[in-house]
Amino acid sequence: MNCEVVAVGTELLLGQIVDTNSSWIGEQLALAGIDSHHQTKVGDNLERMVAVLGQALDRSDAVIVCGGLGPTQDDITREALAAVMGVELVRDERIIAKIETMFGGRGRNMAENNKRQADVPAGARVNPAMPGTAAGLICPLSGSSLSGAHEGKVIYAVPGVPWEMRQMVLEGVLPDLAERAGISAVIRSRTLRTWGQSESGLAEQLDEEIRRLDETGTATIAFLASGLEGLKVRITAKARSEAEAVSILDAEESRVRDLIGDIVFGTDDDTMESVVLDLLRNRGLTLALAESLTGGLISSRLVNHPGCSEVFRGGIVAYHRDLKQSLLRAGDTHSVSEEMVIEMAQGACRVLDADVGLAVSGVAGPEPHEGVDPGVVCIGVHIAPVGDDGDGEPDGADRSDEPNGHSEAITIKLPFDRERIRQFTCIMALNMLRTRLLNQPERTQPEWTRPDAHRS
Amino acid sequence: MNCEVVAVGTELLLGQIVDTNSSWIGEQLALAGIDSHHQTKVGDNLERMVAVLGQALDRSDAVIVCGGLGPTQDDITREALAAVMGVELVRDERIIAKIETMFGGRGRNMAENNKRQADVPAGARVNPAMPGTAAGLICPLSGSSLSGAHEGKVIYAVPGVPWEMRQMVLEGVLPDLAERAGISAVIRSRTLRTWGQSESGLAEQLDEEIRRLDETGTATIAFLASGLEGLKVRITAKARSEAEAVSILDAEESRVRDLIGDIVFGTDDDTMESVVLDLLRNRGLTLALAESLTGGLISSRLVNHPGCSEVFRGGIVAYHRDLKQSLLRAGDTHSVSEEMVIEMAQGACRVLDADVGLAVSGVAGPEPHEGVDPGVVCIGVHIAPVGDDGDGEPDGADRSDEPNGHSEAITIKLPFDRERIRQFTCIMALNMLRTRLLNQPERTQPEWTRPDAHRS
Repeated sequence: MNCEVVAVGTELLLGQIVDTNSSWIGEQLALAGIDSHHQTKVGDNLERMVAVLGQALDRSDAVIVCGGLGPTQDDITREALAAVMGVELVRDERIIAKIETMFGGRGRNMAENNKRQADVPAGARVNPAMPGTAAGLICPLSGSSLSGAHEGKVIYAVPGVPWEMRQMVLEGVLPDLAERAGISAVIRSRTLRTWGQSESGLAEQLDEEIRRLDETGTATIAFLASGLEGLKVRITAKARSEAEAVSILDAEESRVRDLIGDIVFGTDDDTMESVVLDLLRNRGLTLALAESLTGGLISSRLVNHPGCSEVFRGGIVAYHRDLKQSLLRAGDTHSVSEEMVIEMAQGACRVLDADVGLAVSGVAGPEPHEGVDPGVVCIGVHIAPVGDDGDGEPDGADRSDEPNGHSEAITIKLPFDRERIRQFTCIMALNMLRTRLLNQPERTQPEWTRPDAHRS
Repeated sequence: MNCEVVAVGTELLLGQIVDTNSSWIGEQLALAGIDSHHQTKVGDNLERMVAVLGQALDRSDAVIVCGGLGPTQDDITREALAAVMGVELVRDERIIAKIETMFGGRGRNMAENNKRQADVPAGARVNPAMPGTAAGLICPLSGSSLSGAHEGKVIYAVPGVPWEMRQMVLEGVLPDLAERAGISAVIRSRTLRTWGQSESGLAEQLDEEIRRLDETGTATIAFLASGLEGLKVRITAKARSEAEAVSILDAEESRVRDLIGDIVFGTDDDTMESVVLDLLRNRGLTLALAESLTGGLISSRLVNHPGCSEVFRGGIVAYHRDLKQSLLRAGDTHSVSEEMVIEMAQGACRVLDADVGLAVSGVAGPEPHEGVDPGVVCIGVHIAPVGDDGDGEPDGADRSDEPNGHSEAITIKLPFDRERIRQFTCIMALNMLRTRLLNQPERTQPEWTRPDAHRS
């Protein structure tokens, strides 16, 4: 079974929008074990769309076409699908009712235009997920299609809006693809996010386990690089029921974690920063930053999470050397040294009134700075002693045995250009903070006072 | 004349790398007035590459293939080109000599592998630009190609490394395409970067000028959206010589600037932050930031420029309300108010010892904050009075007539989601600072003391 991706939109060809949807779909297909050999971008032009879809069906078993399902006149994916299938469009009143309900919920009336979104090629099914006003389509090719050679193949149409597209691919497209691939069992996956190990290193650590799985056939393990954000380890289980699949995943996750240790920073949609924020929250700790070469990048990654205000106090971008001294009261040590980042982390705790301080200093290049080569970076973490959080209230958890808290620094040398040195420093600093927070006790307050207790 | 793009690399299909190269090339083709109807991604597989290139030649006059020109065994674009052209690969000793020189310059020896980068399909030319070890190729299709139907068409091969690719496209590919399109004249373009006006608004302001150019034919004007970073206005001139083209561009740029005013923030490779840093430098002013909802994003954009340390002092991310007061000594005003951002900007100048302070505060959402709706953002600028820059030295320029300096704030309401509210705030804040700096006098010190004076 192989499946290719067609992204529709003139704005993609003009470079006004970068096509990240196809990349995401390509990753999902790879993780699901489905080959994908081609991805094509084509403009909002009926003739060219029909030709591209035909070519895609010539060489692949399935096609995911992304975009062109909106309500405006240049959204013509529905028309292109009908042409490729050799059928008429039929207006589906149930979709109109759904769209009307969505508009009604926001106190607005549905525009006449939106009715176009209810046009479905005869013989097509609607994707079970419909988070927005666009209906996703599952279009089987039968003998009536333009070319009989496409018999038994399928086109999935999903909208170009990323969050709508993602839900439809996960809930409607991938399960259908699996079924067509003759996989009648329940297939579930879990992704472990890791940081700090190379792909070959991971493969070596998991070599025996992968071989064991090959023999038993209970699950599979796949690796996927995600740039500076580490490597993903995807565990996929095939079972007779949802419950059985989840239980296999649970068992396998715990086996993998035992083998590769705490380089696993999270699962599925976790990011390094969401994990760090969760650790701080569970431990009742607040965080302050002191950044030099990253210039606010770490801070801005944390702030991107809506819930950060509970634990993130703020940060100081001490780009000039003298600010490290005047603002953070760091001593007269070298700008790029372990002493300096420890003093910066302690200063951040003090000045910004936080329990934990994270500091980075280094040379992003391209030129050396104060005799230090580009790529040399120091990262410091300070965890203040109990009761030193400045809120006047005693803290329930015994966070540290050291009366002055715990301070620690590392030095690294990164062989990258300026931009990547800064990006890499961000993730390394967050990961260092993460591993140090793991050693801190969770807070002992009753369950019902936790912020996430409402959910249950 | 139309030209399509083929991006080569299995990592692109797997979603490990997002294909930004094709988007950039698509934009360049659009700006050069060359139609581009398809973009395809294909893996490192000879058979599929040859098939995709053949299909591209069937429907387009020219193809740019990007990637697969490296030294390793999976870099097989050269082999695919030879197959499509129906010719042999010939090793070009001049390319080997060039690569050896590059390695020698870095004190290293060329690996044997790199010799593969000197293989050129018989009949192909080498791109005149060769910034790295990969040679770009210009491959005309002749009667000997796989299909005679491709006679007179051309494939350009460029590497996947973005900066190498860009230089080759600009210096080698676009001029060759223009020549093939029968444009024998010298064609030169200049892009004006604008911010703060819609495409239809710009089109209206330039309507008469565009009609005048249609009649005279001396130049053309095209618009291109670049997301949150504004609109590009590209002026293209056709002339008999380089000097004539430049003089037409100069005259037209000045005409366009007269019509649309200071929404033009820069030209060609300028970014909003590089322009702001240049303005500060030319005026002998230093900058400090106080950020709330942007959480360090503005600061990190500035720090991305290697030369920023001369004028950028640092910043404070005052995410928590009490830090605005304790750290920036702002008063007890509402967190999201014009009074607050002015006090924050003044505080940033004072605490970080800078001439100019830029501050933002607002609600990124998704929930309202202190009774203020998501999307409401205040931006404040403070320019300190002369002699108040804390360095003890008198300043030569008379920067302000006001004894307490100049402070100013605006309030905006952005109808976006959290991420776009933060991004939009960044660029709006930098643009506000830019327009205010334009009113400040340039410094009067002698030319030779300027940092860029070395260059001449």
